[in-house]
Amino acid sequence: MKDVTIGLLTDFGLDDTYVGVMKAVIAGLAPRARLIDVTHTLPPGDVRQAAFKLWQCVPYFPPGAVFLAVVDPGVGTSRRAIAAAWDHFTVVAPDNGLMTYLLAESPPRAAVELTHAEYRRPQVSATFHGRDVFAPAAGHLARGVRLDRLGPPARNLLRFDLPRLELLEGPRLKGEFLHTDRFGNWITTLGRLTEADGDLELRPWLPSCPPAHLPLFPRLRLLLPTGLELPVLRTFGEAAEGTVLAYIGSEGLLEVAVNRGSAAATLAVHPGQDVLLTYEV
Amino acid sequence: MKDVTIGLLTDFGLDDTYVGVMKAVIAGLAPRARLIDVTHTLPPGDVRQAAFKLWQCVPYFPPGAVFLAVVDPGVGTSRRAIAAAWDHFTVVAPDNGLMTYLLAESPPRAAVELTHAEYRRPQVSATFHGRDVFAPAAGHLARGVRLDRLGPPARNLLRFDLPRLELLEGPRLKGEFLHTDRFGNWITTLGRLTEADGDLELRPWLPSCPPAHLPLFPRLRLLLPTGLELPVLRTFGEAAEGTVLAYIGSEGLLEVAVNRGSAAATLAVHPGQDVLLTYEV
Amino acid sequence: MKDVTIGLLTDFGLDDTYVGVMKAVIAGLAPRARLIDVTHTLPPGDVRQAAFKLWQCVPYFPPGAVFLAVVDPGVGTSRRAIAAAWDHFTVVAPDNGLMTYLLAESPPRAAVELTHAEYRRPQVSATFHGRDVFAPAAGHLARGVRLDRLGPPARNLLRFDLPRLELLEGPRLKGEFLHTDRFGNWITTLGRLTEADGDLELRPWLPSCPPAHLPLFPRLRLLLPTGLELPVLRTFGEAAEGTVLAYIGSEGLLEVAVNRGSAAATLAVHPGQDVLLTYEV
Repeated sequence: MKDVTIGLLTDFGLDDTYVGVMKAVIAGLAPRARLIDVTHTLPPGDVRQAAFKLWQCVPYFPPGAVFLAVVDPGVGTSRRAIAAAWDHFTVVAPDNGLMTYLLAESPPRAAVELTHAEYRRPQVSATFHGRDVFAPAAGHLARGVRLDRLGPPARNLLRFDLPRLELLEGPRLKGEFLHTDRFGNWITTLGRLTEADGDLELRPWLPSCPPAHLPLFPRLRLLLPTGLELPVLRTFGEAAEGTVLAYIGSEGLLEVAVNRGSAAATLAVHPGQDVLLTYEV
Repeated sequence: MKDVTIGLLTDFGLDDTYVGVMKAVIAGLAPRARLIDVTHTLPPGDVRQAAFKLWQCVPYFPPGAVFLAVVDPGVGTSRRAIAAAWDHFTVVAPDNGLMTYLLAESPPRAAVELTHAEYRRPQVSATFHGRDVFAPAAGHLARGVRLDRLGPPARNLLRFDLPRLELLEGPRLKGEFLHTDRFGNWITTLGRLTEADGDLELRPWLPSCPPAHLPLFPRLRLLLPTGLELPVLRTFGEAAEGTVLAYIGSEGLLEVAVNRGSAAATLAVHPGQDVLLTYEV
Repeated sequence: MKDVTIGLLTDFGLDDTYVGVMKAVIAGLAPRARLIDVTHTLPPGDVRQAAFKLWQCVPYFPPGAVFLAVVDPGVGTSRRAIAAAWDHFTVVAPDNGLMTYLLAESPPRAAVELTHAEYRRPQVSATFHGRDVFAPAAGHLARGVRLDRLGPPARNLLRFDLPRLELLEGPRLKGEFLHTDRFGNWITTLGRLTEADGDLELRPWLPSCPPAHLPLFPRLRLLLPTGLELPVLRTFGEAAEGTVLAYIGSEGLLEVAVNRGSAAATLAVHPGQDVLLTYEV
């Protein structure tokens, strides 16, 4: 358990000392851990987006990785501090829904509440559990401490309602807009899709939607709440510069982009709005 | 001295190659050093905020850490380049006040001027001593070079005037606003405070203010220059959403926040303005 | 080849999981590689600025470094994925001009197209070759896989037209504005200049301009397209606060700055505009 990889996700930003201080605490406990920043600029307090991005990055990490996920608007209140272990990774986070997508995929093999004082910093502040509770837990796990040493078992981890995704007659697929990325691309819940042998495989990712096969032709269209109807292309470069397109993103979710532009700046849609995958008539 | 941790603080931002180039120079000298970014987005040239954040992160690093702190508006002028060692850490920085808070706590056990050519890059530019002077010094220290090899002893390191903090009759505490953080929380000089057994321990942090005990009840109030009077709560979550509160921050300094909002965006105060910790009448 | 340093340059930003996911992929392949972020906030799709910054940072890395440079607006189209090796470093990047400045300095000793499936991720998406093609190639190179294992030889790597730089009679130097940095300093193509023994050595960096010696006196002046004529000083601190100056930047290129201010915010110039180094009459 020596060179464990620790992935860090927070809404702490990069302007303050908070992230560096958490890493310093880990370095004191697990000097050989490899720290990988996933992101620290999650919108402050946006547990839903944090949960999505945590779910998104987990599969790419080496087995045994520990995730330190701290978006914690309820710090210092009665919300629990948790570590939960799956077969290939462990997550340390406040119990506020951050693990919702991961829990929807599979139950953890164990989860504990981070209450044991010897695995926290001696003085626990009311407002910075990242430094005083979560980073120490991640550091101790990375140096080989067993999960059950950190505290008593924790049940009924908090989950928020997952976003909408429905398989309609047709078959068509109805979902919602999630959030935009750096390139101004809109990510939707429509997926997870893989193009294969002339049809489109719909793999399960949200429990509300069964696996299915969708016909790839006649050509797919994405219907936005604004009335706009978009072609589904394979990549940005297949659209003319400045035009809007839909494509299957790198996680198999449909995304909306403007080639060499920004869909976020171009389209009047917002998170939670409906989006429909249908067919050209 | 093999796996030394190096903490980096600069105002270089993350858009240019400057931080990466400094790390590359260190990697060439001390390949096993662990690099931890504290922050690189300090306001350009803001030595005072840099000095505060350096002081803030130092205690959390493992013993033997080296800090590479470069906010250097006077680069290329006659200002000195310095390395100063305390018992548990060493700071490499321009002599422009960056170590002010650390010097106020305790004198270094040794300090040198970074003049010896063999521990600088062969060509020293006039505008990037981070790359040519400071990163090489940090790298050589991390690989075990003794401080006194880097240059002759340096005395009278530059300090700026510390911010105000006074213990008034009452006892009450008068201080000033320092700066805001990512969450829009205002940090003040009022501290360092620890709640203990029904009273409030005031520990020394600025030489202008002696240690003391303050009564925790009747309830504490924070008086802002705008006339606003705030309750002092234990954490954000104890205030209603959208309301302003004061609380003891994670360094024991009083901070002003808006629960799930931004005090920076809400309050018309600026750095250096007075703030008073008093009691409800 | 164990502790190879990998420098990362992308336009992926720091808000999404993209950079963290690439690093996670590398950690799985080359756990001992040292990852150094050069920058991830290149303007989206700006291959020219990316190419400049890649060229700028390469010389400071330890021998054997691998660069993972992904600014890839043509991802998923027919543009090739490349790894090219020079004597002291290797670059993994899309074939879109990213290596232009490096290729202008010297031809690589070998270059391959990244087509061999065993050195890519099993499923290659159409929109995230950073994760599926480039990061695996960098990881395999860092763990010691030979370049020629990654794919067949690649010739005629794409280059864009280099920016303008001309030696005029006088001698004077005519070039163009490139881009601004974090401090609001404008970087120009005028260089690379070294002050030595009362004259100015012009070293070759763009093939359009031969090496030369320029007289350092009478005093140098920089002539901007706005008509403004600036003194060339040694460093910011030699100008009064708030005044505009030119100086030889840390790469030997002339830059325009405002001491304790921002030339980017002050001057009405844009990338590609002419700038002339001349002499006071």
